[in-house]
Amino acid sequence: MLPFIRSDLAKFTAYKPHPSSDTAESVPVQFDRLDTNESPYDLPPELKEKLAWTYQQVIETNRYPDGGHETLKDAIAEYVNESAVRSLSNTAANISVGNGSDELIRSLLIATCLGGEGSILVANPTFSMYGILAETLGIPVVAVGRNETNFEIDLKAAQAAIEQTQNPPIRVVFVVHPNSPTANSLTAAELAWLRSLSEHILVVIDEAYFEFSQTTLVGELGQHPNWVILRTFSKAFRLASLRVGYCVAHPEVIAILEKVRLPYNLPSFSIAAALVALQNRTLLLESIPQTLSERAKLIEILSQQLELQITPSAANFIYLRLKPNSFNSPDAALKTFHQKLRTVGTVVRHISSGGLRITVGTIEENARTVNRVQAVLANLEF
Amino acid sequence: MLPFIRSDLAKFTAYKPHPSSDTAESVPVQFDRLDTNESPYDLPPELKEKLAWTYQQVIETNRYPDGGHETLKDAIAEYVNESAVRSLSNTAANISVGNGSDELIRSLLIATCLGGEGSILVANPTFSMYGILAETLGIPVVAVGRNETNFEIDLKAAQAAIEQTQNPPIRVVFVVHPNSPTANSLTAAELAWLRSLSEHILVVIDEAYFEFSQTTLVGELGQHPNWVILRTFSKAFRLASLRVGYCVAHPEVIAILEKVRLPYNLPSFSIAAALVALQNRTLLLESIPQTLSERAKLIEILSQQLELQITPSAANFIYLRLKPNSFNSPDAALKTFHQKLRTVGTVVRHISSGGLRITVGTIEENARTVNRVQAVLANLEF
Repeated sequence: MLPFIRSDLAKFTAYKPHPSSDTAESVPVQFDRLDTNESPYDLPPELKEKLAWTYQQVIETNRYPDGGHETLKDAIAEYVNESAVRSLSNTAANISVGNGSDELIRSLLIATCLGGEGSILVANPTFSMYGILAETLGIPVVAVGRNETNFEIDLKAAQAAIEQTQNPPIRVVFVVHPNSPTANSLTAAELAWLRSLSEHILVVIDEAYFEFSQTTLVGELGQHPNWVILRTFSKAFRLASLRVGYCVAHPEVIAILEKVRLPYNLPSFSIAAALVALQNRTLLLESIPQTLSERAKLIEILSQQLELQITPSAANFIYLRLKPNSFNSPDAALKTFHQKLRTVGTVVRHISSGGLRITVGTIEENARTVNRVQAVLANLEF
Repeated sequence: MLPFIRSDLAKFTAYKPHPSSDTAESVPVQFDRLDTNESPYDLPPELKEKLAWTYQQVIETNRYPDGGHETLKDAIAEYVNESAVRSLSNTAANISVGNGSDELIRSLLIATCLGGEGSILVANPTFSMYGILAETLGIPVVAVGRNETNFEIDLKAAQAAIEQTQNPPIRVVFVVHPNSPTANSLTAAELAWLRSLSEHILVVIDEAYFEFSQTTLVGELGQHPNWVILRTFSKAFRLASLRVGYCVAHPEVIAILEKVRLPYNLPSFSIAAALVALQNRTLLLESIPQTLSERAKLIEILSQQLELQITPSAANFIYLRLKPNSFNSPDAALKTFHQKLRTVGTVVRHISSGGLRITVGTIEENARTVNRVQAVLANLEF
């Protein structure tokens, strides 16, 4: 062990980028990559052409990017204000942008919990990066569970954790709305609980899948200066390759995030792409209704498999479990299920808590998903 | 103050991206942007075209980037191995890449000093991000000075700081080779001191300007598992807009950096651009000799100004001070000097310790630099 490295990092395992696309290139099978909740559609050729033109004619590769992001933040604020029913007045002062939401999550952790000042609370299963990024920073992670049926957070346990965690106290609560991997939106009880939390606790509501759920808490930010909403261009806006996330919050929170972030965190090309995506949002979001109807079809057909348990989804993916009483060894069965799906060409995410998360893809991909799930299940004996 | 924010962050001032390019657009003057040590040259049109083509034909905007960076790391290792006189055998296992060197600096700080485990040592004036990123993480910064004539680190003070700093001890020493803003390479005495440091201290040698200095310590990494070398594509490789830095080190250090970094830290377009730059390095680095001869000319001509003190440079910029006995108020004179240069269209960096850092630009820009420095000096009375 190198003596200058923090001893607590040695035992820590990193987030491993899911290797679907890398592996896809080295294997003859044409993989359906349904493991990372990306949009199945690239930008339309005319927008890629426009971006390529912008790169060639406008961007000076040799010059540092715009580190202030004002134009992009103005455009994001406008889009955010459209997203709520009530009239909103967010401006660039309410927005910070990051190298994906990941950078914003890290900045939020740095700003609140470092130096033994705070722990964080998550309800598993949920997006794993909250816990991983906290651990790299030496921040304690308190985890509670969820209801086995509808995946609602165990609110009793969560409240008890907040009351009892002292050393250090819980300073940030992370929720995804709708949750990944379980695809459920926050319930009325969960919302009531979040609203009841002390203003000493930062509540991070990750709306990565907002464009699919069309449910947002952005309208409540005004009443809750301790709430932060995360959003991303990586899902519905189809920009996963370019890494742009953003955060909507009280100007004081934003000012701190702007202090903590790397000064040139977004490449010029990524800034340009996010602007083009926002300018063409009507066009890009036209694919959403198809995703939602495909999701309904997937759930309907797969629910006919007696061995499967599928819960409602408010996002662009479904969460599927094996019924425990259909298998002698459900965990082993699930693992094999996941591997065999991959062997026949459909890559999905295996969640250690006991489910598969499958992204809604193109019409053709979803048809293959159904056929392959049925075929693999037919031969699954455990 | 928001109660969930770390109290020590309130008093902290962020790094302000130098606003030259932003301001340039809102002012009628054509600015010479000589404040951030960028290359004055964009990529040649044929390479921009190639990258635009790659974006349109190969990159899927909707898919997450390659989070493993293997191809890029192989190409970097090959380039690094060329850069030393002796034969080297670095592989991808010796390389980690980041969203600019900034992200790597932050990862190194996180990996070593968090949780009260370490302080860092810098010798001012130097690249300000080491201290700024440390402060955002609550890591103490111990600063020593430099020799007023040749800018060698005050090695006595540095050694004393290492021996006396206890709470927490110094765990990382940062040096730039050659230093920014003072443009001097490490001296034999500085090198001997770095070699003498305990293996419990991480030594970060930032070779951002290596392509201009052609002096590297990469050949010594084998003997010093506690040394890390930082490099960047933002200067000689002309990719400042796309944010790619890298680090060369012992595989165990690299393994930790890979754990700590954000899993998808580089956009696909930035990865593609760094690869194209490396593949075309002969072409891109052809501009270096001109930069070096222009630097010599700038120093020679400006040294004829009796009020100026200019020291040798091993980088793509020069560092210039006003002779104290030429002015009654040298600090006020320098400030005015900087502002007036800006007013006439040359943006340079004002260093608070008492100098101006001026990037070597195109032949035309440098000619204007000379004329404007002479003209402004002729009317500078303090």
